[in-house]
Amino acid sequence: MILSTIHSSADLKKLDREQLNTLCGEIRHELIRTVSVNGGHLASNLGIVELTVALHRVFDTPRDKIIFDVGHQSYVHKMITGRYGQFGSLRTYGGLSGFPKRIESEYDCFETGHASTAISAALGFARARDYQHQDYRVVALVGDGALTGGMCYEALNDAGNQKLQLTVILNDNEMSIAPNVGALSAYLTHLRISAGWQSAKRRVRRLTGVPVIGKASYRIIHGTKKAIKSILMRNSTVGFFETLGFQYFGPIDGHDLRSLEETLAQAKNYKGPCVIHVLTKKGYGYEQAEKRPEAFHGTPPFYIETGDRMKDPEYPSSGHQMADRLSELANADPRVVAITAAMPLGTGLDHFAEKHPDRMIDVGIAEEHAATMAAGMAAGGMRPYVAVYASFFQRCYDQMIHDICMQHLPVVFLLDRSGIGGEDGQTHHGVFDLAALLPVPGMTVLCPSDANELCEMLTWTLQHDQPAAIRYGKEGTPLPQPFSGRNRFEAGKWNTLTEGEDLVILAAGSMVRTSLEVSSGLSAQGIHAKVMNCSSAKPADRDFLRKLKPDTPVFTVEEHMTTGGFGEYITELCRNLNVRIPDVCFGIPDVFLQHGKHDLLLKDAGLTAAQIKDRILCSLGKKANHE
Amino acid sequence: MILSTIHSSADLKKLDREQLNTLCGEIRHELIRTVSVNGGHLASNLGIVELTVALHRVFDTPRDKIIFDVGHQSYVHKMITGRYGQFGSLRTYGGLSGFPKRIESEYDCFETGHASTAISAALGFARARDYQHQDYRVVALVGDGALTGGMCYEALNDAGNQKLQLTVILNDNEMSIAPNVGALSAYLTHLRISAGWQSAKRRVRRLTGVPVIGKASYRIIHGTKKAIKSILMRNSTVGFFETLGFQYFGPIDGHDLRSLEETLAQAKNYKGPCVIHVLTKKGYGYEQAEKRPEAFHGTPPFYIETGDRMKDPEYPSSGHQMADRLSELANADPRVVAITAAMPLGTGLDHFAEKHPDRMIDVGIAEEHAATMAAGMAAGGMRPYVAVYASFFQRCYDQMIHDICMQHLPVVFLLDRSGIGGEDGQTHHGVFDLAALLPVPGMTVLCPSDANELCEMLTWTLQHDQPAAIRYGKEGTPLPQPFSGRNRFEAGKWNTLTEGEDLVILAAGSMVRTSLEVSSGLSAQGIHAKVMNCSSAKPADRDFLRKLKPDTPVFTVEEHMTTGGFGEYITELCRNLNVRIPDVCFGIPDVFLQHGKHDLLLKDAGLTAAQIKDRILCSLGKKANHE
Repeated sequence: MILSTIHSSADLKKLDREQLNTLCGEIRHELIRTVSVNGGHLASNLGIVELTVALHRVFDTPRDKIIFDVGHQSYVHKMITGRYGQFGSLRTYGGLSGFPKRIESEYDCFETGHASTAISAALGFARARDYQHQDYRVVALVGDGALTGGMCYEALNDAGNQKLQLTVILNDNEMSIAPNVGALSAYLTHLRISAGWQSAKRRVRRLTGVPVIGKASYRIIHGTKKAIKSILMRNSTVGFFETLGFQYFGPIDGHDLRSLEETLAQAKNYKGPCVIHVLTKKGYGYEQAEKRPEAFHGTPPFYIETGDRMKDPEYPSSGHQMADRLSELANADPRVVAITAAMPLGTGLDHFAEKHPDRMIDVGIAEEHAATMAAGMAAGGMRPYVAVYASFFQRCYDQMIHDICMQHLPVVFLLDRSGIGGEDGQTHHGVFDLAALLPVPGMTVLCPSDANELCEMLTWTLQHDQPAAIRYGKEGTPLPQPFSGRNRFEAGKWNTLTEGEDLVILAAGSMVRTSLEVSSGLSAQGIHAKVMNCSSAKPADRDFLRKLKPDTPVFTVEEHMTTGGFGEYITELCRNLNVRIPDVCFGIPDVFLQHGKHDLLLKDAGLTAAQIKDRILCSLGKKANHE
Repeated sequence: MILSTIHSSADLKKLDREQLNTLCGEIRHELIRTVSVNGGHLASNLGIVELTVALHRVFDTPRDKIIFDVGHQSYVHKMITGRYGQFGSLRTYGGLSGFPKRIESEYDCFETGHASTAISAALGFARARDYQHQDYRVVALVGDGALTGGMCYEALNDAGNQKLQLTVILNDNEMSIAPNVGALSAYLTHLRISAGWQSAKRRVRRLTGVPVIGKASYRIIHGTKKAIKSILMRNSTVGFFETLGFQYFGPIDGHDLRSLEETLAQAKNYKGPCVIHVLTKKGYGYEQAEKRPEAFHGTPPFYIETGDRMKDPEYPSSGHQMADRLSELANADPRVVAITAAMPLGTGLDHFAEKHPDRMIDVGIAEEHAATMAAGMAAGGMRPYVAVYASFFQRCYDQMIHDICMQHLPVVFLLDRSGIGGEDGQTHHGVFDLAALLPVPGMTVLCPSDANELCEMLTWTLQHDQPAAIRYGKEGTPLPQPFSGRNRFEAGKWNTLTEGEDLVILAAGSMVRTSLEVSSGLSAQGIHAKVMNCSSAKPADRDFLRKLKPDTPVFTVEEHMTTGGFGEYITELCRNLNVRIPDVCFGIPDVFLQHGKHDLLLKDAGLTAAQIKDRILCSLGKKANHE
């Protein structure tokens, strides 16, 4: 096996063509094997095996800096930079991260996770290099999807005016996570069908010697013919990148190692900023992933033969349940539209699109624009629902405040993947959203205890002409009996789940389930907790808070940073209402949680039912001693 | 006077050419007169008098929607849409806002304040219109400066792929607030020097009949000749906008009302998305503003004859004091660089640029990119200081978390205009930054009590290899004697300003000064407060907190939203340390403060010294009764 002998870019440089072809096959085999067990990002990594190998052969890594935009396509990079031996631990607790990590390797020069950051970071490195009179190359590897993000444009605009060495590799697989949208996508299609692309395609067809699992299929270039035609007529062959001051090379075949190396070598010696347009195929070399690249973008464990998931969840995801309900609401109300920033599948909105294809808007990886565009639609009389992962919602923080809340416009944010994200790790945890939302006047902040309540909240938001945000996790499992379906949601009103006189637990969102467990555990010890489902975080249930008794301990529990979270918010209310403030606010401590299974990370945060129970007991004991 | 007879766009349409010319002169006169008294945005408004009149004559406002990007150039619009009578109240408490306000007029269809949002909002309106089968036009008026913001690009990319009516007016005055930067700026220069521009320039020179105050001067087109030449050689005449699917018209002379109206009328009937490139001159018609458009971008009251400011502040601004110190640090440390997002003057960094022109980086109106580019520079060994208004910092919230703090990179944010912003109103108050910063692991959050301490903090941050943010207001006045210069800053350590046994005031930033007044007031009543300068918000002074006595009331005071602010943060620490929590956290209540003089807005927030003193007394009394 060659792969196990590769520990650095120097090792790569010793290989001959045949060995390289074998290596690429081994890498693909290992990618498929590991991701089929651990889950992860498969299609994007399969698509850039040759490109990654070529980069490390041509550039002098780690001295030269390669920055992987969005980072989930760094698996191949990890395997050939000394981490093959640990690759089986990918995305597991304490194991390799699924994203670049500076602590893992000096080959990981900059960490990424959210899209469209790499060109900015690369320009930063290039400037730092030139200020310090150093001599290394900087390369940003960016997908065509990430190029729809405004940051890329800001960085291109800034860099294009500088005469510094900076190479942008445009990894064009004709999709981001979902098929790509926007005018620029049509423009790239135009570049693809130019002469360069024709020969590149021929090269792809000629490509041999790459061992593939399953039969490789070549998709015909898709795209609206009308769009292509109109662009051709415009005669703007090199317009976009050259307007922004970048030299354009391409397009080249991203699975032809030799021509990749030739072009990269040229770019390496180019003095100014340049773009190399590389055509790759998502999922290349694994038939299942080539056929369904979206499904194999991020995948749970699967059977290699069939591509089927090993275990389907018992319940549809929260996102899918949300989307089904939103579809029903849209049937009755023509104002309802759904908006996504390139994540129709992840957010569950594919279900909405099936029913209302004309009322589903995908704006590309552009959360800022999504939010303000939604504000415009709301001002124009529509009722937009913006579904976005909580961690990506951070991208439209200003737009939420400035364009939506200041005008009190009825835009509803559906914050999927709120709370601790699990295997994707720190860049994907949605643990800052309450701190972002609660201080903003006029924003209603909701934390459903399960997907049933989430669906009720959709109805409520449509009846109320104001901004709102609903935060929830991926899992769509309902609360256990007898609590399932028992919560009738009402803003500013909390539901009592268990009665008890010894203490009060104010639980938000996912932590309602945990708090019920805590309550059971305490009951077994003769301590009876009143567990409240505080699904309406803001407005809070002031009537309930007013009735808190001075001698009954209160605890808040949330899957969010303690700082700026629900507990602190309630504390301030209690102070103003002159009632007992919470004794302990359970939340995530002041650290970035890493990656691994959700329950392990919850434990790191001190948020398992057992940990909460113990700390409550401890707190009660302490109080008892004081009294 | 014609202006006083104009109450709607219908009134405008009745005027003949001569009357229109007179009107434009009256508008300029009124602009200069009012802004010379009230302060405000002058140069940009003088530049679009004819353009605004033409828009309202050609389009059927308010049915047709005009969205003013960044909003500060909406004065002319306000004057001719029924608000001339109130124009004297511009930017005063209870008076007209300096930005579009939906509550003021149905002509203000969408509120703006931060840059680069208008195309997104316009696309939202256009989509809403088409979904509802309505029939109106949507126009976004965007400056060439705002076009450096990524949101514009995201919106153009999204809109360019739709076949809907949407008109973008590119108001090109060759600068944003400072002279424009980036490759796109060079490209626009190229368009300007094309044939269309030549004739436009001739038209500008021919222009007569516009009464001007002072002598109009015509600036020669500036821009790097090299850049122009290289662009010309690239032959990308229509590249950028047409690549993004927009039809391009222009450039046209923005001070020739007739040709403006002709072109706008064409655009009005154009079915798809289009860009009209209009050339205007910032400050047009007022010599002082034409000569110094940056100084007259946002100006305090001034003498019309000379353009001199009526009252120069006694002390240089915090920003200028910061920049002077940063320059000194940069003398000794070659790693120091300063970064601005198109605001060298506002942030005071012009002082830094005088000393270190090569180490000052202006990235355009692109806060997202600024932050991540800074992260790249820091990872590459430099020490970037990003100076940005606190309210615009909201734009790089995700980048602060994801690109800077997660990698613990030593980027320092200098958050100018933190706290209540005054006359610019709600979009410009910097009152959410602590809530954004405090929950983020590894972020050091500093609130200097005056500019002396701010300067000390700069030294500290350079000595410490970690992310930090320093928040401060515009005013550079030092603390009064004997407190001025007495604070030796140390992270995690608070300074005692006044001794007192009756209560403790934990004061942050600007509220240190206020708290000293509160303390004086209380002393006069025989109550002695210990006032602490809590300039190190995070890390807080735990040693001090540990020593808080259970029977001594504690109060926190900050110029920030109470929710998510310093007080709540301290409360959580006190809870964990098992000491008395603050009795009252003074901060801004849960509303968006409007515009007006800073002291009036402070009063609205309940944060004047008198209000705080009274509420403390009330709190003490209540406690006394309880005991």
